[in-house]
Amino acid sequence: MKLKVKAIDLEAGRNLVVMNEEDARDLGIHIQDRVKVSKGARTLTAIVSLSESMIRDGEIGLFRETLEELDAKNGDEVSVLPTHRPASVEYIKKKMRGEKLTKDEIYAIIRDITEENLSDVEMAAYVTAIYTMGMDMDETEWATRAMVETGETIDFDTTIFDIHSVGGVPGNKYAPITVSIAAQAGLRIPKTSSRAISSAAGTADVMEVLTNVALSARDIKRIVNEVGATLAWGGSMNLAPADDKIVQVEYPLGIDPHPQVLASVMAKKKAVGTDFLVIDLPMGPETKVPDMKAARRYAMDFIGLGERLGITVECAVTYGEQPIGRAIGPALEAKEALMVLEGRSVSNSIVEKSTDLAGILLEMANVAAKGEGKRMAKEILESGKARDKFLEIINAQGSRGIERSDDVPVGEHTFDYPSPMDGYVGAISNRAMVAIARAAGAPKDKGAGIWLHKKKGDKVEKGEPLFTVHAECEAKLEVARDLLKRLRPYTIVGMLLERIPMI
Amino acid sequence: MKLKVKAIDLEAGRNLVVMNEEDARDLGIHIQDRVKVSKGARTLTAIVSLSESMIRDGEIGLFRETLEELDAKNGDEVSVLPTHRPASVEYIKKKMRGEKLTKDEIYAIIRDITEENLSDVEMAAYVTAIYTMGMDMDETEWATRAMVETGETIDFDTTIFDIHSVGGVPGNKYAPITVSIAAQAGLRIPKTSSRAISSAAGTADVMEVLTNVALSARDIKRIVNEVGATLAWGGSMNLAPADDKIVQVEYPLGIDPHPQVLASVMAKKKAVGTDFLVIDLPMGPETKVPDMKAARRYAMDFIGLGERLGITVECAVTYGEQPIGRAIGPALEAKEALMVLEGRSVSNSIVEKSTDLAGILLEMANVAAKGEGKRMAKEILESGKARDKFLEIINAQGSRGIERSDDVPVGEHTFDYPSPMDGYVGAISNRAMVAIARAAGAPKDKGAGIWLHKKKGDKVEKGEPLFTVHAECEAKLEVARDLLKRLRPYTIVGMLLERIPMI
Repeated sequence: MKLKVKAIDLEAGRNLVVMNEEDARDLGIHIQDRVKVSKGARTLTAIVSLSESMIRDGEIGLFRETLEELDAKNGDEVSVLPTHRPASVEYIKKKMRGEKLTKDEIYAIIRDITEENLSDVEMAAYVTAIYTMGMDMDETEWATRAMVETGETIDFDTTIFDIHSVGGVPGNKYAPITVSIAAQAGLRIPKTSSRAISSAAGTADVMEVLTNVALSARDIKRIVNEVGATLAWGGSMNLAPADDKIVQVEYPLGIDPHPQVLASVMAKKKAVGTDFLVIDLPMGPETKVPDMKAARRYAMDFIGLGERLGITVECAVTYGEQPIGRAIGPALEAKEALMVLEGRSVSNSIVEKSTDLAGILLEMANVAAKGEGKRMAKEILESGKARDKFLEIINAQGSRGIERSDDVPVGEHTFDYPSPMDGYVGAISNRAMVAIARAAGAPKDKGAGIWLHKKKGDKVEKGEPLFTVHAECEAKLEVARDLLKRLRPYTIVGMLLERIPMI
Repeated sequence: MKLKVKAIDLEAGRNLVVMNEEDARDLGIHIQDRVKVSKGARTLTAIVSLSESMIRDGEIGLFRETLEELDAKNGDEVSVLPTHRPASVEYIKKKMRGEKLTKDEIYAIIRDITEENLSDVEMAAYVTAIYTMGMDMDETEWATRAMVETGETIDFDTTIFDIHSVGGVPGNKYAPITVSIAAQAGLRIPKTSSRAISSAAGTADVMEVLTNVALSARDIKRIVNEVGATLAWGGSMNLAPADDKIVQVEYPLGIDPHPQVLASVMAKKKAVGTDFLVIDLPMGPETKVPDMKAARRYAMDFIGLGERLGITVECAVTYGEQPIGRAIGPALEAKEALMVLEGRSVSNSIVEKSTDLAGILLEMANVAAKGEGKRMAKEILESGKARDKFLEIINAQGSRGIERSDDVPVGEHTFDYPSPMDGYVGAISNRAMVAIARAAGAPKDKGAGIWLHKKKGDKVEKGEPLFTVHAECEAKLEVARDLLKRLRPYTIVGMLLERIPMI
């Protein structure tokens, strides 16, 4: 069938075309069926969306990407033929029936996801099927390898170390510190990280306060060879791109299928050639790891998957029941990380966590003897050499000229949140803290966030500030203040835990 | 946030808006998040799609439906605020975890589906979750009732009979015959049916050859009261509209979750006030009911769900291993149905099936004694009174002036498919027959289809025509001829079934 192009001034995010319902019926195709569209020697497969009236009989609506790919413009003639769904839709259905997929089937699915051959509906069915039916270790390994092979990879000619946190706990700015200690001890560690999706700050957001994080694969290779480490944003490379597309569907559903978490983490690490990997599993009621049972399951699976991929994995279950350290939000966390590196930390939790993780890396690398890693990590931190290494890294990436914790600009509009009563801090809600920091503007407003004055177990007096909220403008500070009226960020426990009346 | 409207000359099928990535980031929203958009007193909730460049900072792209609902035009200012996902997304996730949903949760989901508050991704997750995790009878009943209550209903003040086939077998033109017999015996039977989605002809497509099928609820009520029955297209009313929207997601995935099949059928019947219902379950390797085990499961569930809804259900498992009768395709099936009504049938299977089903209806209505229904149905058919009733029905709906089987126009471009050898017909592939009829133009070209000369067990000679393909134009006939080269529509078995050599 020949149709006249109607150019639509929008990106569609994938190969989507719009046809008139009559034409579609003539071709025997329905909504979400596929057609092959050709103009001259150029041809592509697209998913059909239907229009009752805006696309007339004899017309086909093409979006920006499709116009470019076909080199077509308004009024051009294209030929349109019905075509089959990709075979991977059948494999998704096979998974929906609870059957195990073969290697070829999983590779076909991941390839179609990477090339954007699947519709939103098909992508959602895939993610839901993985969530409800699971994947065994074979399938998870194939999915991981397929994600690696359909993207960019970096090939170092030396042993590569890496670290990753499955996240879920706010204020988790261990990475700049741990990576600097490890690099100072001679390890090569091309750490890539993500921006916040639903948290207040990803490591990439934090690092961006101090340096350029949008590095190419070539930059990373060069800088790691020069100074030992990078702290870059993974999104500027094309590492395991299928994963980014899967996240686009997981996010609106708010689900994280277990095998996909494993495959996602390990694919990004395999793509940069990691040989030794530490996985941080923050455990707490509001993280992805609610209890030791879940932690052990993650640990076994990460270690097992690592073995299959030739990556030696160690997992660290860390305390995640309250924010790590005192700062939440990009600039505040960058400031606190610098304070730790400068030996001026006001919080033990971030010092301990960062050196615990670095210690494991040092032991894996055999630069510290078994049981000596933590001590060595602390020494490197306390000597100031980790700080020197960190400055080398941010300079190599492209420093913003902020090198001291005192110089980090944080949101100037602030208010203090007072304790409602005398007592002890019984609990801090991670979820509430993230919501408040986001309401104040984080992660987009880098200076926005929260500084905690009191942590779990601290004694407080009525009216004493529990935390300070920072924002870059008064309006967002007000949004955060409003939100606080509806949340209970802290639980203050009185001296008297329970009063049992005498009868 | 205030944004300037950029009108997009397209329907989006639901409340979808397009924002610039920067603005979205400022509001802290991601792709597929929701926003409240207001202009003056008008306000709506929409799902956000992102644009890198075509929608500029400060603009919001609104599609046709949204423009109308807000009474907005290009350049108008609207205010945009992030808002939460509907609670039903949480309920969908609950089902994904394998938990049972409450009545309120299912009603919320069905309401949001009806009002198009869910995105494609969320709809696909719902259908996939139902497919993989199932629903028990409570949940299925609630889903059915919710679908009925969110749509139009017809309230007759008399006892209503109905019949439905779960389909999957081509040539299944029982409905005009069975309904006419039942109406002639005094039953009220407001039969609604669907157009073909993936088959060669739905009952609505067949009836449309002879009469108007787009009736309103009022028309149906009037005509049923006048002549006893209608044979209308369900889509022209708003019966259980959630079902139609669910089909839009099931179709591209090619799945039919069992509880959704039950809910879909029963909701459409409950909406027209059905009291007694016969369900036809065609059994065969290529239908929805592969074996007696599946048939019994369907039957138990339909009967059980009927009891909960106050509908008395009987199920008939019918032979579905080859096409019913001789005709496939709208006009050819209309012709064969008229031939049966005229007493000129050339195929027993359609006569037997139609009177079997009518017999069950007559016994349920107590107009025939137990065991006498089939005989009475045959008598009514043979008397010519069923034909008279059928003509009354098509005249009441709006006849096209075709009243005799000889007058039905069928596709004039034809070719015969010859038997490749002497032998017997061992099997006919339903799937291949449907594919050929569709390639020839069915269901859109009403005259396109297939007339079978030989059926299972018939003796054939090499070169004798097995079937004739009809099309309305030569081009589509060629498409069907090409397709036939790749399919094996008939299996011809030689006289000698196997030759065991002497040793």
